[in-house]
Amino acid sequence: MHYCVQIAYDGTDFSGWQRQLNAHTIQAEIEDGISKLLQQNITILGCGRTDTGVHAKDYYFNFDCSTSLPSNFLYKLNHLLPISIVVKNMYEVSEGFSTRFDAKERTYEYYIHTQKNPFLNAYSLYVGQRLDIEKMNKAGELLLGRQDFQSFSKAKTEVNNFYCEIHEAYWTENQTSQLVFKITANRFLRNMVRAIVGTLIEVGSGKQNPDYIVSVIEAKNRGAAGKSVAAHALFLTNIEYDKSTWQALG
Amino acid sequence: MHYCVQIAYDGTDFSGWQRQLNAHTIQAEIEDGISKLLQQNITILGCGRTDTGVHAKDYYFNFDCSTSLPSNFLYKLNHLLPISIVVKNMYEVSEGFSTRFDAKERTYEYYIHTQKNPFLNAYSLYVGQRLDIEKMNKAGELLLGRQDFQSFSKAKTEVNNFYCEIHEAYWTENQTSQLVFKITANRFLRNMVRAIVGTLIEVGSGKQNPDYIVSVIEAKNRGAAGKSVAAHALFLTNIEYDKSTWQALG
Repeated sequence: MHYCVQIAYDGTDFSGWQRQLNAHTIQAEIEDGISKLLQQNITILGCGRTDTGVHAKDYYFNFDCSTSLPSNFLYKLNHLLPISIVVKNMYEVSEGFSTRFDAKERTYEYYIHTQKNPFLNAYSLYVGQRLDIEKMNKAGELLLGRQDFQSFSKAKTEVNNFYCEIHEAYWTENQTSQLVFKITANRFLRNMVRAIVGTLIEVGSGKQNPDYIVSVIEAKNRGAAGKSVAAHALFLTNIEYDKSTWQALG
Repeated sequence: MHYCVQIAYDGTDFSGWQRQLNAHTIQAEIEDGISKLLQQNITILGCGRTDTGVHAKDYYFNFDCSTSLPSNFLYKLNHLLPISIVVKNMYEVSEGFSTRFDAKERTYEYYIHTQKNPFLNAYSLYVGQRLDIEKMNKAGELLLGRQDFQSFSKAKTEVNNFYCEIHEAYWTENQTSQLVFKITANRFLRNMVRAIVGTLIEVGSGKQNPDYIVSVIEAKNRGAAGKSVAAHALFLTNIEYDKSTWQALG
Protein backbone atom coordinates (compact mmCIF):
# COMPACT_ATOMS: atom_id res chain seq x y z
CA MET A 1 0.00 0.00 0.00
CA HIS A 2 1.16 3.55 -0.79
CA TYR A 3 0.48 6.34 1.64
CA CYS A 4 0.85 10.12 1.64
CA VAL A 5 0.70 12.09 4.88
CA GLN A 6 0.05 15.81 5.37
CA ILE A 7 1.74 17.31 8.42
CA ALA A 8 2.84 20.63 9.95
CA TYR A 9 5.79 21.26 12.20
CA ASP A 10 7.61 23.86 14.23
CA GLY A 11 11.25 23.51 13.17
CA THR A 12 12.72 25.46 16.11
CA ASP A 13 14.20 22.50 17.94
CA PHE A 14 15.09 20.38 14.89
CA SER A 15 18.20 20.14 12.71
CA GLY A 16 15.94 20.34 9.67
CA TRP A 17 13.82 17.71 7.95
CA GLN A 18 16.35 15.16 6.82
CA ARG A 19 17.56 12.27 8.95
CA GLN A 20 21.23 12.60 9.93
CA LEU A 21 23.45 10.78 12.35
CA ASN A 22 23.37 12.25 15.85
CA ALA A 23 20.88 14.98 15.00
CA HIS A 24 17.30 15.60 16.03
CA THR A 25 15.37 15.76 12.75
CA ILE A 26 11.72 15.71 11.78
CA GLN A 27 12.16 12.77 9.40
CA ALA A 28 13.78 10.64 12.09
CA GLU A 29 11.10 11.52 14.64
CA ILE A 30 8.31 10.50 12.26
CA GLU A 31 10.04 7.40 10.85
CA ASP A 32 10.66 6.15 14.37
CA GLY A 33 7.03 6.81 15.30
CA ILE A 34 5.55 5.04 12.27
CA SER A 35 7.99 2.14 12.54
CA LYS A 36 7.01 1.68 16.17
CA LEU A 37 3.28 1.75 15.41
CA LEU A 38 3.56 -0.62 12.44
CA GLN A 39 6.22 -2.79 14.09
CA GLN A 40 8.41 -2.75 10.98
CA ASN A 41 11.14 -0.48 9.65
CA ILE A 42 9.52 2.25 7.56
CA THR A 43 11.37 4.82 5.44
CA ILE A 44 9.51 7.99 4.58
CA LEU A 45 10.19 10.28 1.61
CA GLY A 46 9.62 13.98 2.20
CA CYS A 47 8.51 16.59 -0.35
CA GLY A 48 11.74 18.52 0.24
CA ARG A 49 14.43 19.33 2.76
CA THR A 50 13.81 22.18 5.12
CA ASP A 51 16.86 23.62 6.86
CA THR A 52 17.53 23.79 10.58
CA GLY A 53 14.95 26.02 12.26
CA VAL A 54 12.64 26.36 9.24
CA HIS A 55 8.93 25.58 9.84
CA ALA A 56 6.23 23.99 7.70
CA LYS A 57 2.55 24.88 7.95
CA ASP A 58 2.02 22.33 5.20
CA TYR A 59 4.32 19.41 4.39
CA TYR A 60 3.80 16.03 2.71
CA PHE A 61 5.72 12.79 2.85
CA ASN A 62 5.00 9.37 1.39
CA PHE A 63 5.81 5.82 2.42
CA ASP A 64 5.06 2.30 1.35
CA CYS A 65 3.94 -0.48 3.63
CA SER A 66 3.02 -4.07 2.82
CA THR A 67 0.21 -4.10 5.38
CA SER A 68 -2.82 -1.84 5.76
CA LEU A 69 -2.75 0.68 8.57
CA PRO A 70 -4.27 -0.13 11.97
CA SER A 71 -7.42 1.73 12.99
CA ASN A 72 -6.96 5.21 14.46
CA PHE A 73 -3.46 5.30 12.97
CA LEU A 74 -3.50 9.10 12.55
CA TYR A 75 -4.67 9.62 16.14
CA LYS A 76 -2.08 7.20 17.51
CA LEU A 77 0.71 8.76 15.48
CA ASN A 78 -0.19 12.24 16.74
CA HIS A 79 -0.17 10.95 20.27
CA LEU A 80 3.28 9.44 19.77
CA LEU A 81 4.88 12.43 18.04
CA PRO A 82 6.11 15.50 19.97
CA ILE A 83 3.89 18.59 20.25
CA SER A 84 6.02 20.30 17.60
CA ILE A 85 4.73 17.95 14.85
CA VAL A 86 1.07 17.45 13.96
CA VAL A 87 -0.33 14.91 11.49
CA LYS A 88 -3.25 16.55 9.69
CA ASN A 89 -4.41 14.09 7.00
CA MET A 90 -3.52 10.72 5.47
CA TYR A 91 -4.23 9.49 1.95
CA GLU A 92 -3.85 6.32 -0.04
CA VAL A 93 -2.06 7.15 -3.30
CA SER A 94 -1.06 5.41 -6.54
CA GLU A 95 2.11 3.37 -6.81
CA GLY A 96 5.08 5.49 -7.74
CA PHE A 97 3.58 8.73 -6.45
CA SER A 98 6.28 10.94 -4.96
CA THR A 99 5.60 13.91 -2.71
CA ARG A 100 8.92 15.29 -3.90
CA PHE A 101 8.89 14.75 -7.66
CA ASP A 102 5.15 15.14 -8.24
CA ALA A 103 4.91 18.53 -6.52
CA LYS A 104 3.78 21.14 -9.04
CA GLU A 105 4.68 24.19 -7.04
CA ARG A 106 5.69 25.17 -3.53
CA THR A 107 5.01 28.31 -1.53
CA TYR A 108 7.09 29.81 1.25
CA GLU A 109 6.36 32.76 3.52
CA TYR A 110 8.83 34.92 5.41
CA TYR A 111 7.82 37.17 8.33
CA ILE A 112 9.39 40.47 9.39
CA HIS A 113 8.40 43.04 12.00
CA THR A 114 9.91 46.52 12.12
CA GLN A 115 8.41 47.63 15.45
CA LYS A 116 9.87 45.94 18.52
CA ASN A 117 7.41 43.31 19.77
CA PRO A 118 8.62 40.66 22.26
CA PHE A 119 5.89 38.20 21.27
CA LEU A 120 6.63 38.04 17.54
CA ASN A 121 10.31 37.07 17.73
CA ALA A 122 9.72 33.32 17.80
CA TYR A 123 8.45 33.28 14.21
CA SER A 124 9.39 36.66 12.76
CA LEU A 125 12.62 38.58 12.11
CA TYR A 126 12.95 41.95 13.85
CA VAL A 127 14.40 44.54 11.50
CA GLY A 128 14.76 47.78 13.41
CA GLN A 129 14.16 50.14 10.49
CA ARG A 130 11.38 51.08 8.13
CA LEU A 131 11.20 48.95 4.99
CA ASP A 132 9.56 50.29 1.83
CA ILE A 133 7.06 47.62 0.74
CA GLU A 134 6.44 49.25 -2.64
CA LYS A 135 10.11 49.18 -3.56
CA MET A 136 10.46 45.58 -2.35
CA ASN A 137 7.46 44.62 -4.48
CA LYS A 138 8.96 46.31 -7.54
CA ALA A 139 12.08 44.25 -6.96
CA GLY A 140 9.95 41.14 -6.39
CA GLU A 141 8.36 41.50 -9.82
CA LEU A 142 11.82 41.25 -11.38
CA LEU A 143 12.17 37.76 -9.87
CA LEU A 144 9.16 36.37 -11.75
CA GLY A 145 9.41 33.83 -14.57
CA ARG A 146 11.92 31.17 -15.45
CA GLN A 147 15.41 32.41 -14.65
CA ASP A 148 18.78 31.17 -13.48
CA PHE A 149 18.89 31.79 -9.72
CA GLN A 150 22.46 30.70 -9.01
CA SER A 151 23.07 33.99 -7.21
CA PHE A 152 20.55 32.91 -4.56
CA SER A 153 21.80 29.34 -4.16
CA LYS A 154 24.16 27.81 -1.62
CA ALA A 155 27.55 27.38 -3.28
CA LYS A 156 27.74 23.71 -2.29
CA THR A 157 24.80 22.07 -3.98
CA GLU A 158 24.01 18.89 -5.86
CA VAL A 159 21.66 20.37 -8.46
CA ASN A 160 22.32 20.18 -12.23
CA ASN A 161 20.99 23.61 -13.01
CA PHE A 162 19.77 26.74 -11.22
CA TYR A 163 16.64 27.41 -13.27
CA CYS A 164 13.48 28.02 -11.28
CA GLU A 165 10.17 29.42 -12.43
CA ILE A 166 8.87 31.91 -9.87
CA HIS A 167 5.10 32.44 -10.09
CA GLU A 168 4.56 34.88 -7.22
CA ALA A 169 6.91 37.03 -5.12
CA TYR A 170 5.31 39.86 -3.15
CA TRP A 171 5.03 41.47 0.26
CA THR A 172 1.88 42.31 2.19
CA GLU A 173 1.27 43.72 5.67
CA ASN A 174 -0.77 41.55 8.02
CA GLN A 175 -3.02 42.40 10.99
CA THR A 176 -0.13 42.47 13.45
CA SER A 177 1.79 44.93 11.20
CA GLN A 178 4.20 42.24 10.09
CA LEU A 179 5.58 42.31 6.56
CA VAL A 180 4.90 38.93 4.96
CA PHE A 181 6.81 37.82 1.87
CA LYS A 182 5.05 35.15 -0.17
CA ILE A 183 6.97 33.33 -2.88
CA THR A 184 5.72 30.52 -5.11
CA ALA A 185 7.81 28.57 -7.61
CA ASN A 186 8.02 25.20 -9.33
CA ARG A 187 11.21 24.52 -7.36
CA PHE A 188 13.56 26.22 -4.91
CA LEU A 189 17.32 25.99 -4.53
CA ARG A 190 18.93 25.53 -1.13
CA ASN A 191 18.78 28.69 0.97
CA MET A 192 17.11 30.53 -1.95
CA VAL A 193 14.20 32.17 -0.13
CA ARG A 194 16.37 33.45 2.71
CA ALA A 195 18.93 34.85 0.25
CA ILE A 196 16.14 36.54 -1.74
CA VAL A 197 14.63 38.08 1.41
CA GLY A 198 18.04 39.36 2.50
CA THR A 199 18.46 40.96 -0.93
CA LEU A 200 14.99 42.51 -0.89
CA ILE A 201 15.69 44.01 2.55
CA GLU A 202 18.60 45.91 0.96
CA VAL A 203 16.05 47.37 -1.45
CA GLY A 204 13.41 48.05 1.22
CA SER A 205 15.86 49.81 3.50
CA GLY A 206 16.98 52.09 0.67
CA LYS A 207 20.52 50.74 0.31
CA GLN A 208 19.73 49.52 -3.20
CA ASN A 209 17.21 50.34 -5.93
CA PRO A 210 14.69 47.73 -7.10
CA ASP A 211 16.69 47.28 -10.36
CA TYR A 212 19.56 45.97 -8.25
CA ILE A 213 17.79 42.57 -8.40
CA VAL A 214 18.48 42.33 -12.15
CA SER A 215 22.22 42.77 -11.67
CA VAL A 216 22.22 40.24 -8.83
CA ILE A 217 20.47 37.62 -10.99
CA GLU A 218 22.78 38.32 -13.92
CA ALA A 219 25.90 37.90 -11.78
CA LYS A 220 25.15 34.17 -11.23
CA ASN A 221 27.26 34.47 -8.11
CA ARG A 222 26.05 34.07 -4.51
CA GLY A 223 28.36 36.90 -3.47
CA ALA A 224 26.31 39.37 -5.51
CA ALA A 225 23.13 38.89 -3.48
CA GLY A 226 22.32 40.11 0.03
CA LYS A 227 22.92 38.20 3.25
CA SER A 228 20.78 35.19 4.01
CA VAL A 229 18.22 36.03 6.71
CA ALA A 230 17.51 33.91 9.81
CA ALA A 231 15.66 30.58 9.49
CA HIS A 232 13.13 30.99 12.34
CA ALA A 233 10.88 33.33 10.32
CA LEU A 234 10.59 31.05 7.25
CA PHE A 235 7.59 28.79 6.67
CA LEU A 236 6.86 26.30 3.92
CA THR A 237 3.13 27.02 3.56
CA ASN A 238 1.78 25.16 0.55
CA ILE A 239 2.61 22.41 -1.93
CA GLU A 240 0.45 21.81 -4.99
CA TYR A 241 -0.32 18.30 -6.25
CA ASP A 242 -2.83 16.71 -8.57
CA LYS A 243 -4.88 15.10 -5.79
CA SER A 244 -7.57 13.61 -8.05
CA THR A 245 -6.52 10.02 -7.33
CA TRP A 246 -5.83 10.49 -3.62
CA GLN A 247 -8.13 8.67 -1.24
CA ALA A 248 -8.51 10.22 2.19
CA LEU A 249 -8.15 7.80 5.10
CA GLY A 250 -10.08 7.96 8.42
CA MET B 1 12.75 63.28 39.40
CA HIS B 2 10.37 60.30 39.67
CA TYR B 3 9.68 58.13 36.67
CA CYS B 4 7.34 55.31 35.82
CA VAL B 5 7.93 53.11 32.76
CA GLN B 6 5.47 50.86 30.96
CA ILE B 7 7.05 47.81 29.32
CA ALA B 8 6.22 44.35 27.91
CA TYR B 9 8.45 41.30 27.88
CA ASP B 10 8.72 37.72 26.75
CA GLY B 11 9.86 35.83 29.85
CA THR B 12 10.97 32.67 28.03
CA ASP B 13 14.69 33.19 28.43
CA PHE B 14 14.62 34.93 31.81
CA SER B 15 14.77 33.66 35.38
CA GLY B 16 11.82 35.89 36.19
CA TRP B 17 11.63 39.62 36.94
CA GLN B 18 13.72 40.00 40.06
CA ARG B 19 17.46 40.56 40.04
CA GLN B 20 19.39 37.60 41.48
CA LEU B 21 23.03 36.66 41.58
CA ASN B 22 24.15 34.69 38.52
CA ALA B 23 20.74 34.73 36.84
CA HIS B 24 19.44 36.42 33.70
CA THR B 25 16.52 38.53 34.90
CA ILE B 26 14.41 41.28 33.40
CA GLN B 27 15.10 43.69 36.25
CA ALA B 28 18.87 43.28 35.88
CA GLU B 29 18.69 43.75 32.09
CA ILE B 30 16.73 47.00 32.44
CA GLU B 31 18.68 48.36 35.42
CA ASP B 32 21.92 47.79 33.56
CA GLY B 33 20.52 49.51 30.46
CA ILE B 34 19.21 52.57 32.30
CA SER B 35 22.36 52.85 34.42
CA LYS B 36 24.46 52.79 31.28
CA LEU B 37 22.38 55.44 29.54
CA LEU B 38 22.26 57.73 32.58
CA GLN B 39 25.85 56.97 33.61
CA GLN B 40 24.85 56.38 37.23
CA ASN B 41 23.67 53.39 39.24
CA ILE B 42 19.89 53.19 39.00
CA THR B 43 17.66 50.82 40.98
CA ILE B 44 14.23 50.13 39.56
CA LEU B 45 11.17 48.96 41.51
CA GLY B 46 8.81 46.63 39.67
CA CYS B 47 5.06 46.31 40.13
CA GLY B 48 5.49 42.66 41.08
CA ARG B 49 7.64 39.57 40.68
CA THR B 50 6.91 37.36 37.73
CA ASP B 51 8.31 33.83 37.90
CA THR B 52 10.76 32.19 35.51
CA GLY B 53 9.18 31.90 32.06
CA VAL B 54 6.14 34.08 32.78
CA HIS B 55 5.45 36.92 30.30
CA ALA B 56 4.06 40.43 30.68
CA LYS B 57 2.05 42.19 28.01
CA ASP B 58 1.86 45.08 30.42
CA TYR B 59 4.27 45.81 33.25
CA TYR B 60 5.29 48.95 35.14
CA PHE B 61 8.35 49.86 37.15
CA ASN B 62 9.44 53.12 38.75
CA PHE B 63 12.79 54.70 39.49
CA ASP B 64 14.16 57.94 40.82
CA CYS B 65 16.93 59.94 39.25
CA SER B 66 18.44 63.26 40.31
CA THR B 67 18.85 64.43 36.71
CA SER B 68 16.29 64.77 33.93
CA LEU B 69 16.34 62.19 31.18
CA PRO B 70 18.33 62.78 27.97
CA SER B 71 16.36 63.32 24.76
CA ASN B 72 15.13 60.19 22.97
CA PHE B 73 15.64 58.22 26.18
CA LEU B 74 12.82 55.77 25.38
CA TYR B 75 14.18 55.14 21.87
CA LYS B 76 17.73 54.69 23.13
CA LEU B 77 16.65 52.34 25.91
CA ASN B 78 14.70 50.18 23.44
CA HIS B 79 17.73 50.04 21.21
CA LEU B 80 19.90 48.92 24.11
CA LEU B 81 17.53 46.29 25.52
CA PRO B 82 17.18 42.81 23.98
CA ILE B 83 14.34 42.10 21.54
CA SER B 84 12.48 40.26 24.31
CA ILE B 85 11.83 43.52 26.22
CA VAL B 86 10.06 46.56 24.78
CA VAL B 87 9.65 49.95 26.45
CA LYS B 88 6.22 51.32 25.53
CA ASN B 89 5.74 54.54 27.50
CA MET B 90 7.41 56.70 30.13
CA TYR B 91 5.80 59.03 32.65
CA GLU B 92 6.86 61.53 35.25
CA VAL B 93 5.05 60.70 38.51
CA SER B 94 4.68 62.16 42.01
CA GLU B 95 7.23 61.53 44.73
CA GLY B 96 6.49 58.34 46.63
CA PHE B 97 4.47 56.76 43.84
CA SER B 98 5.06 53.00 43.77
CA THR B 99 4.16 50.76 40.84
CA ARG B 100 3.91 47.94 43.36
CA PHE B 101 1.98 49.43 46.28
CA ASP B 102 -0.22 51.82 44.29
CA ALA B 103 -1.53 49.14 41.91
CA LYS B 104 -5.31 48.85 42.34
CA GLU B 105 -5.73 45.57 40.56
CA ARG B 106 -3.82 43.20 38.32
CA THR B 107 -4.99 40.92 35.52
CA TYR B 108 -3.40 37.70 34.32
CA GLU B 109 -4.30 35.51 31.33
CA TYR B 110 -3.53 31.84 30.85
CA TYR B 111 -3.68 30.12 27.41
CA ILE B 112 -4.57 26.50 26.67
CA HIS B 113 -5.11 24.65 23.38
CA THR B 114 -6.72 21.22 23.22
CA GLN B 115 -6.06 20.49 19.53
CA LYS B 116 -2.41 19.80 18.64
CA ASN B 117 -0.94 22.89 16.96
CA PRO B 118 2.86 23.19 16.64
CA PHE B 119 2.73 26.99 16.40
CA LEU B 120 0.87 27.67 19.64
CA ASN B 121 3.19 25.83 22.03
CA ALA B 122 5.49 28.78 22.70
CA TYR B 123 2.78 30.69 24.58
CA SER B 124 0.04 28.16 25.26
CA LEU B 125 -0.27 24.86 27.16
CA TYR B 126 -1.31 21.83 25.12
CA VAL B 127 -3.86 19.76 27.01
CA GLY B 128 -4.72 16.74 24.88
CA GLN B 129 -8.32 16.36 26.01
CA ARG B 130 -11.58 18.26 25.77
CA LEU B 131 -12.16 20.74 28.60
CA ASP B 132 -15.67 21.82 29.54
CA ILE B 133 -15.61 25.62 29.58
CA GLU B 134 -19.03 25.90 31.25
CA LYS B 135 -17.98 23.76 34.18
CA MET B 136 -14.70 25.65 34.52
CA ASN B 137 -16.63 28.92 34.56
CA LYS B 138 -19.00 27.64 37.24
CA ALA B 139 -15.92 26.81 39.31
CA GLY B 140 -14.41 30.20 38.46
CA GLU B 141 -17.43 31.99 39.93
CA LEU B 142 -16.73 30.31 43.26
CA LEU B 143 -13.34 32.05 43.37
CA LEU B 144 -14.84 35.54 43.31
CA GLY B 145 -14.77 37.93 46.25
CA ARG B 146 -12.44 38.34 49.22
CA GLN B 147 -11.32 34.92 50.40
CA ASP B 148 -8.34 33.20 51.95
CA PHE B 149 -6.42 31.61 49.07
CA GLN B 150 -3.74 29.78 51.04
CA SER B 151 -4.58 26.59 49.14
CA PHE B 152 -3.30 28.25 45.95
CA SER B 153 -0.14 29.76 47.43
CA LYS B 154 3.42 28.49 47.45
CA ALA B 155 4.14 26.98 50.88
CA LYS B 156 7.28 29.10 51.32
CA THR B 157 6.10 32.67 51.23
CA GLU B 158 6.74 35.95 53.04
CA VAL B 159 3.17 37.25 53.09
CA ASN B 160 1.27 38.01 56.33
CA ASN B 161 -2.08 36.77 55.13
CA PHE B 162 -3.59 34.93 52.17
CA TYR B 163 -6.62 37.14 51.56
CA CYS B 164 -7.15 38.26 47.98
CA GLU B 165 -10.19 39.84 46.40
CA ILE B 166 -10.84 38.27 43.01
CA HIS B 167 -12.94 40.47 40.73
CA GLU B 168 -13.04 38.34 37.58
CA ALA B 169 -12.19 34.69 36.85
CA TYR B 170 -13.56 33.26 33.61
CA TRP B 171 -12.67 31.35 30.46
CA THR B 172 -13.39 32.32 26.86
CA GLU B 173 -12.47 30.76 23.52
CA ASN B 174 -10.45 32.94 21.15
CA GLN B 175 -10.15 33.01 17.35
CA THR B 176 -7.49 30.32 17.28
CA SER B 177 -9.69 28.00 19.40
CA GLN B 178 -7.54 28.56 22.46
CA LEU B 179 -9.13 28.60 25.89
CA VAL B 180 -8.15 31.83 27.63
CA PHE B 181 -8.49 32.22 31.40
CA LYS B 182 -8.69 35.80 32.59
CA ILE B 183 -8.33 36.56 36.28
CA THR B 184 -8.34 39.96 37.96
CA ALA B 185 -7.68 40.63 41.64
CA ASN B 186 -6.40 43.28 44.02
CA ARG B 187 -3.38 41.06 44.71
CA PHE B 188 -2.03 37.61 43.85
CA LEU B 189 -0.04 35.16 45.93
CA ARG B 190 3.03 33.42 44.54
CA ASN B 191 2.13 30.76 42.00
CA MET B 192 -1.58 31.44 42.61
CA VAL B 193 -2.79 31.74 39.00
CA ARG B 194 -1.00 28.59 37.88
CA ALA B 195 -2.35 26.63 40.84
CA ILE B 196 -5.88 27.90 40.13
CA VAL B 197 -5.62 26.95 36.45
CA GLY B 198 -4.37 23.48 37.34
CA THR B 199 -7.33 23.08 39.69
CA LEU B 200 -9.83 24.34 37.10
CA ILE B 201 -8.43 21.83 34.56
CA GLU B 202 -9.43 19.05 36.96
CA VAL B 203 -12.97 20.43 36.77
CA GLY B 204 -12.92 20.96 32.99
CA SER B 205 -11.64 17.45 32.31
CA GLY B 206 -14.45 15.96 34.42
CA LYS B 207 -12.25 14.63 37.24
CA GLN B 208 -13.91 16.99 39.70
CA ASN B 209 -17.19 18.89 39.94
CA PRO B 210 -17.24 22.72 40.04
CA ASP B 211 -18.07 22.62 43.76
CA TYR B 212 -14.69 21.01 44.35
CA ILE B 213 -13.26 24.56 44.35
CA VAL B 214 -15.12 25.34 47.59
CA SER B 215 -13.52 22.42 49.41
CA VAL B 216 -10.10 23.33 48.03
CA ILE B 217 -10.42 26.91 49.32
CA GLU B 218 -11.69 25.74 52.69
CA ALA B 219 -8.78 23.32 53.12
CA LYS B 220 -6.26 26.23 53.34
CA ASN B 221 -3.65 23.73 52.25
CA ARG B 222 -1.70 23.77 48.97
CA GLY B 223 -1.99 19.99 48.80
CA ALA B 224 -5.76 20.23 48.34
CA ALA B 225 -5.53 22.12 45.02
CA GLY B 226 -4.55 20.82 41.59
CA LYS B 227 -1.06 20.79 40.12
CA SER B 228 0.51 24.07 39.12
CA VAL B 229 0.51 24.44 35.30
CA ALA B 230 3.51 25.48 33.18
CA ALA B 231 4.76 29.09 33.24
CA HIS B 232 5.16 29.67 29.49
CA ALA B 233 1.39 30.15 28.92
CA LEU B 234 0.92 32.79 31.65
CA PHE B 235 0.81 36.53 30.91
CA LEU B 236 0.48 39.51 33.20
CA THR B 237 -1.81 41.60 30.98
CA ASN B 238 -2.98 44.64 32.91
CA ILE B 239 -2.31 46.70 36.03
CA GLU B 240 -4.69 49.43 37.12
CA TYR B 241 -3.45 52.73 38.57
CA ASP B 242 -4.86 56.15 39.20
CA LYS B 243 -2.96 57.84 36.37
CA SER B 244 -4.50 61.30 36.81
CA THR B 245 -1.22 62.85 37.92
CA TRP B 246 1.04 61.00 35.47
CA GLN B 247 2.73 63.10 32.84
CA ALA B 248 3.63 61.31 29.63
CA LEU B 249 7.20 61.90 28.41
CA GLY B 250 8.54 61.94 24.84
